Amino acid sequence: MSLHSEIREQPDKIRSLLAVQKETAVRIARAIQKRQVRYVFLAARGTSDNAGRYANYLLGAQNGLPLALATPSLFTYYKQPPVLKDALVIGISQSGRSPDIVSVLVEARRQGCPTLTITNEPGSPLAGVADFVLALGAGREKAVAATKTYTGELMAIALLSTALSGEQKAWGELERVAGWMETALEADASVAEAVQRYHDIDQTVVLGRGFNYATAFEWALKRKELSYIIAEPYSSADFLHGPIAMLERGFPVMAVAPRGRVFKPMLSMIRRLKHDFQAEVVVISNDAQALALAATPLPIPSDVPEWLSPLVNILPAQLFAYHLTKIKGFDPDHPRSIQKVTETR
Amino acid sequence: MSLHSEIREQPDKIRSLLAVQKETAVRIARAIQKRQVRYVFLAARGTSDNAGRYANYLLGAQNGLPLALATPSLFTYYKQPPVLKDALVIGISQSGRSPDIVSVLVEARRQGCPTLTITNEPGSPLAGVADFVLALGAGREKAVAATKTYTGELMAIALLSTALSGEQKAWGELERVAGWMETALEADASVAEAVQRYHDIDQTVVLGRGFNYATAFEWALKRKELSYIIAEPYSSADFLHGPIAMLERGFPVMAVAPRGRVFKPMLSMIRRLKHDFQAEVVVISNDAQALALAATPLPIPSDVPEWLSPLVNILPAQLFAYHLTKIKGFDPDHPRSIQKVTETR
Repeated sequence: MSLHSEIREQPDKIRSLLAVQKETAVRIARAIQKRQVRYVFLAARGTSDNAGRYANYLLGAQNGLPLALATPSLFTYYKQPPVLKDALVIGISQSGRSPDIVSVLVEARRQGCPTLTITNEPGSPLAGVADFVLALGAGREKAVAATKTYTGELMAIALLSTALSGEQKAWGELERVAGWMETALEADASVAEAVQRYHDIDQTVVLGRGFNYATAFEWALKRKELSYIIAEPYSSADFLHGPIAMLERGFPVMAVAPRGRVFKPMLSMIRRLKHDFQAEVVVISNDAQALALAATPLPIPSDVPEWLSPLVNILPAQLFAYHLTKIKGFDPDHPRSIQKVTETR
Repeated sequence: MSLHSEIREQPDKIRSLLAVQKETAVRIARAIQKRQVRYVFLAARGTSDNAGRYANYLLGAQNGLPLALATPSLFTYYKQPPVLKDALVIGISQSGRSPDIVSVLVEARRQGCPTLTITNEPGSPLAGVADFVLALGAGREKAVAATKTYTGELMAIALLSTALSGEQKAWGELERVAGWMETALEADASVAEAVQRYHDIDQTVVLGRGFNYATAFEWALKRKELSYIIAEPYSSADFLHGPIAMLERGFPVMAVAPRGRVFKPMLSMIRRLKHDFQAEVVVISNDAQALALAATPLPIPSDVPEWLSPLVNILPAQLFAYHLTKIKGFDPDHPRSIQKVTETR
């Protein structure tokens, strides 16, 4: 039962992360603002890389910071790391133990860049090599598939962004996240019911855009890790550049489409999927129009602002993956072939 | 027959691109070197985004330049573009007509950044807004699925990188690419034979790493566009972080594994796929050990250096996708549901 209880723990963990780390985030932001930072260079893998995708949009939109996702093999196998002058270098890892992510931060430090680690293990090697550490305090994550450390990583990024921008309105919205998450989790039983319809699917695509590009990737990853379903994530724009050709009638498509700046193109994509392709669409949204188009609507609270919606949208997605795994007869707590800590080099 | 003839035209187009654009690339490199450039900010979609993945590794390894892949929606829907100070901004688009990619370059120019367009259409809007243009000169690409413009984009990037580094050895190796491509195309009939075995596959993963991370993405994209097969691309490192759980006995896995700096981890991944997962592995390589592990070996010439191997490796991959499409009974020249120019915003 560890995966299910870890999914349900998330509102409490997020509430406590905000309370415990707010001051640290403000202190880190002040220190970063004393340096000349032109862009962010971010190293992560797996679930943490999806948190990095959120950082790409959030730090760009709220803080004007471009973000480059690191290619760790340039640091390890190629031994030709790029010149990181004027970069803020961030490493994200639940365990803090992935040697290739550590290599990126060691090199960044050697080059004199400010370095920040976001991790659930403040005693880990990745935390040890960084100037600054934002610890998630999520408690031990027993399930192999990451859930509470993913939302913790998103919250750490949102904290950093808000500390850098200093926007009062944003601080107020952060205080409401845990409550929105609690409301979203009330759908547990209805999601368990809704997934029955999908017990025999073996492939799907997941669409999201902007802040929720990360949600599409993370939803797809949970599906692959837990229920062994081929699930490919796309921005709705990239999907039009070729992959849309794959669709056949009844093909299951998952869409993350909360209200916000990219809602209009997401809505028109959902309409097209339903009407032109007769796709079977599962929609996470807080908009009645989008939900009405879905074969399976997964609603979230209506007043969640778009920039924080990835923290809420991922909950019905996690529940969907969990319940689908169970009805497919697999063990969600012990997925085959993967380990909790993957030591890629 | 346009797709097949365009695949076969590639060595000639690459030879002529090198001859025609070498001086332009050197001139552009000199102009860029007069500016303070800390990193590259690159905007592209679809096939051109895969060329951008090559640029990420090549400009990092050979030129010390970190690279950020742009998130065009921050410029269009969000209207909150990041601050691009000290970035070289590159747009890549076959048609030069994707409005969101144009938006990125317009904003970059407004911010005073040096801008470069790589396109097959030097009269296009994207070329019009850039300080510098590298034109592919590939001739009109009639087939919907891009082939000769993809290798043209890779060559344009390799030219730029070599012009920036000024390495004599690299110039000599560039001269040999067209010849290696001609040799690789001799496999046409044998690939047509080899794909018979895969006429009923409907899903696959494609693995590549480092310079050939781009090849994995582009091979997967051709398969999706042309033969409607779910084909998900991964770095072999990311694949271990979860998705490997999807594999079942006999699952088809494509691996791009030429000799070079990431050959060792790719080889050990191929061994694991074959022995631990009984996967059906298709391997593109110039190494006898890697090819010997394959159910279907797709050899390339043995003396291709790793940094230029993406230009050669993609040819058996394109032939594979083309012939598979034919035996599946689809029309490779007119894939359903996609257009040549996708005007995403």
